[in-house]
Amino acid sequence: MIEEAKRSFEQQGFMKTLGAKIIAIEKGMVKISCDLKESLTQQHGFFHAGVITSIADVACGYAAFTTMPEGSDVLSVEIKTNLMRAAKADRIIATGKVIKSGRTLIFCEAKITDEKEETLFATLQGTMMCLQSKTKQ
Amino acid sequence: MIEEAKRSFEQQGFMKTLGAKIIAIEKGMVKISCDLKESLTQQHGFFHAGVITSIADVACGYAAFTTMPEGSDVLSVEIKTNLMRAAKADRIIATGKVIKSGRTLIFCEAKITDEKEETLFATLQGTMMCLQSKTKQ
Amino acid sequence: MIEEAKRSFEQQGFMKTLGAKIIAIEKGMVKISCDLKESLTQQHGFFHAGVITSIADVACGYAAFTTMPEGSDVLSVEIKTNLMRAAKADRIIATGKVIKSGRTLIFCEAKITDEKEETLFATLQGTMMCLQSKTKQ
Amino acid sequence: MIEEAKRSFEQQGFMKTLGAKIIAIEKGMVKISCDLKESLTQQHGFFHAGVITSIADVACGYAAFTTMPEGSDVLSVEIKTNLMRAAKADRIIATGKVIKSGRTLIFCEAKITDEKEETLFATLQGTMMCLQSKTKQ
Repeated sequence: MIEEAKRSFEQQGFMKTLGAKIIAIEKGMVKISCDLKESLTQQHGFFHAGVITSIADVACGYAAFTTMPEGSDVLSVEIKTNLMRAAKADRIIATGKVIKSGRTLIFCEAKITDEKEETLFATLQGTMMCLQSKTKQ
Repeated sequence: MIEEAKRSFEQQGFMKTLGAKIIAIEKGMVKISCDLKESLTQQHGFFHAGVITSIADVACGYAAFTTMPEGSDVLSVEIKTNLMRAAKADRIIATGKVIKSGRTLIFCEAKITDEKEETLFATLQGTMMCLQSKTKQ
Repeated sequence: MIEEAKRSFEQQGFMKTLGAKIIAIEKGMVKISCDLKESLTQQHGFFHAGVITSIADVACGYAAFTTMPEGSDVLSVEIKTNLMRAAKADRIIATGKVIKSGRTLIFCEAKITDEKEETLFATLQGTMMCLQSKTKQ
Repeated sequence: MIEEAKRSFEQQGFMKTLGAKIIAIEKGMVKISCDLKESLTQQHGFFHAGVITSIADVACGYAAFTTMPEGSDVLSVEIKTNLMRAAKADRIIATGKVIKSGRTLIFCEAKITDEKEETLFATLQGTMMCLQSKTKQ
């Protein structure tokens, strides 16, 4: 499902808008980077909480997707971001991981850090849902 | 603080990127609209969960801001989105409201609906923080 | 499913421990009361956040349950409590409601108030899951 | 603040009701155990989600407390539990840790496992607040 995850990611117009890139992907883990530009800022020029949440959601979603049976689709059920400090950085990295994978629901967590993955800006907990392909049911 | 809220909103580069607009604002309530375009989509062409969360976060943030003393700044502490159905709509509306306003923390909720505010796509719970103006401390 | 909800509630040893009672139940809504006693307190003698969350979770769970097909079972997937003020009251009421009911997942919200339902102490967002009866699958 | 944390814990009537015990405590980390008894069960005889959430909340709260200045008090602002599997165990352990400690807000996470800390039943994200001693303000 890793190639399928990459293809699906490419189809998200919003990820292009953010300039987000998958920089690592393996079963149960996806890492996404995003570079600061004025179009992504909050009122003080830092990364907007919405950008942070968006790439962390997608990192979790595709981390979950890589653990699903072929032909599945992934849906975010709920996402929760803790915003610990202003994301003052030129680049942020969201690392999404599967914590518990069930048949229907996949519990994931993401960390959002600076490029060196040293400063933690935010964490996200997300519940993802596996939608079975209709042609297969 | 309503004029200050509008000015601060204008300074968010990310809201311009989303094409988001404040369409109503009063003390404790902010309504934001966002129109579908390809640059805001997930893999199936609907509004991305990140876009939904972003405008709901901002609606709550500025709803909180309108209740703060002059010179304050607002910060999102944590936001939680429940994504109930795919946001299949040409325009979405996020209505953020203050539920409980404290001196430091403001608890808010937002609903994200279609343009007629009939179909509920998502809800957001958010905790916002009031940062006192440095010149006043 | 209303009678089944009441029976299932009676089987929760923990609800007996809390002295919690269903005081209203209809399709999609359950109201639970709980009286203050020393065995339910935090360090200052008020209702413990855990008690508040517990009865709100159960109010949402059984609100969801009343909308499910016969023979189903309900499971809490995730619950999130916003604690707005200390619950200084002799009795608290948790009112759980279904916000969106799907085949598998049911999104619910609860308010936790004083007995007159005037002072809001906390809110809860919860995602509940419908488990189909094995004998029917 | 470790001795103060233990004393405060002893004052929580609800922890006595649960039979919860602090089994480890250091700066930024608290571990709490709780044994299964009928008074703590949901409808199938396993640990109630409310019990799981309660001990995880307290583990996070006192983990936060140990990082606060003397004379402070701790308050749960919001707690969010992901319930990954039924807690089928004779004893559960909640390990709460401080993730980011600010002057006012402390972000914490807890894991709830079996006694061997091998099976993960649930995770909790919580935001705690530091209330300054009134005598010091």
